[in-house]
Amino acid sequence: MGVLLNGAVDGRLVPEDRGLAYGDGVFRTLRLRDGRPVCWARQYRKLQGDCEAIGLRCPTPELLKAELGRAGEGLREGVGKVIVTRGAGQRGYAPPTHPEPNRIVSVGPLPAHPPSFREEGIRVHRCRLRLAIQPRLAGIKHLNRLENVLARMEWTDPAIAEGLLLDAEGYLTEGIASNLFLVREGVLHTPDLSRCGVSGVTRERIMAIALFERVPLRMARLQWQDLLHADEAILVNSLIGAWQIRCVQGREWDRGIWTPRIRGWLDASED
Amino acid sequence: MGVLLNGAVDGRLVPEDRGLAYGDGVFRTLRLRDGRPVCWARQYRKLQGDCEAIGLRCPTPELLKAELGRAGEGLREGVGKVIVTRGAGQRGYAPPTHPEPNRIVSVGPLPAHPPSFREEGIRVHRCRLRLAIQPRLAGIKHLNRLENVLARMEWTDPAIAEGLLLDAEGYLTEGIASNLFLVREGVLHTPDLSRCGVSGVTRERIMAIALFERVPLRMARLQWQDLLHADEAILVNSLIGAWQIRCVQGREWDRGIWTPRIRGWLDASED
Repeated sequence: MGVLLNGAVDGRLVPEDRGLAYGDGVFRTLRLRDGRPVCWARQYRKLQGDCEAIGLRCPTPELLKAELGRAGEGLREGVGKVIVTRGAGQRGYAPPTHPEPNRIVSVGPLPAHPPSFREEGIRVHRCRLRLAIQPRLAGIKHLNRLENVLARMEWTDPAIAEGLLLDAEGYLTEGIASNLFLVREGVLHTPDLSRCGVSGVTRERIMAIALFERVPLRMARLQWQDLLHADEAILVNSLIGAWQIRCVQGREWDRGIWTPRIRGWLDASED
Repeated sequence: MGVLLNGAVDGRLVPEDRGLAYGDGVFRTLRLRDGRPVCWARQYRKLQGDCEAIGLRCPTPELLKAELGRAGEGLREGVGKVIVTRGAGQRGYAPPTHPEPNRIVSVGPLPAHPPSFREEGIRVHRCRLRLAIQPRLAGIKHLNRLENVLARMEWTDPAIAEGLLLDAEGYLTEGIASNLFLVREGVLHTPDLSRCGVSGVTRERIMAIALFERVPLRMARLQWQDLLHADEAILVNSLIGAWQIRCVQGREWDRGIWTPRIRGWLDASED
């Protein structure tokens, strides 16, 4: 368990880092098993794509993987986080001509969620905060996450496991730290994230497996009504796997068959 | 010239700081003269309001003012920056129950802009990036500034002094690091910033003085056409004062009378 800044143990960041000043960087949160990042090829591809989307040079996969291993030494299961920022800069929004990106690799223990979240399902909160529509940043896991913070501040009841976010036009987008799938009459639905939201690796994996398993999948703009009429609603990410939504705003669902099925998909595949 | 982290010289930030992880914080950039922050009462009021808007405890004005003085010791004129973050946090978007905000106070030399920017006026770029509409964060100078960074990356020509930002619906909003005023037939116009953009202290000062001077002022949604038809267009902030826009996308303006007049207003008032 530890934090590495550009490979150095207990490194501290200069306050001029543009990641702090502007949120000028991207990150990934992932699961580690026996010191190895799970689904690393896909996680790295996503990190690299996000770096590219904001014009950032991405560290090599070998380097990051080795650092995740070092930071997670001695931990059988853990959570890894990789942050890449544009590094130190002069005052002003213009990046330096030759930026020196900083990388921060940290590993900690898995979050201690009640086992019932996984086994029984969860209650979720419908957030009042609406996500701004910004196609230029949609899908990217960048460091500008104040919307998520403010949405998460809307409740304190620990029995509520997640918050559901709508966009400015009222379309269902995602969980605060998870992606959403709905099932209706055997068809998987997931929100289109081309205008806002973060497209997570677990969402991408489920979409790929559904295609392989010939389960019909629709990526579309979804409304709150679509959630209410869904046979099953599921939140996913790399840490939680898949949690079924059992209750939101008075609407309740019985335990469904799709959440364990999707969990089975994720457990059976290493990509 | 220096950087103080919670009062400590050359302090370094822990990578778990939520300012870095999520942009969970706010900041101010201001001018220092003989070690004293210019328009401090107003600057502090704005910082405090921004802290409040995201549920952050603001350090006291006495503390920040003293630290700006220490960080700027020996500098007759300088630029000060104050960042307040929600401090270190556990993994996840939920803030700690008892957050310990971090404050970073830094002072450097004034930016070396060509004197012609002030004396003659400037060429500006019309940014392709559109600002997302997010009323919940509008006006606040928070640390989620990736839009500004990406907009600033649209040009490298040093003869272009600033970029003009439109919002997602095409309304003129601000400069990347400045606020905008238009003058037409003796009436000052400035964009309404209730849906996106940053409401700067210099903008607020100019609005207050215009009211006092009985110059008619209109805060409204402005279109690109309003800029093209303006008699004079002016960008303002605490560091540059007021710069006249002389050229954008082929539209050129002669030197106007309002930019020096507004500069006179700013120089004559200490609030």
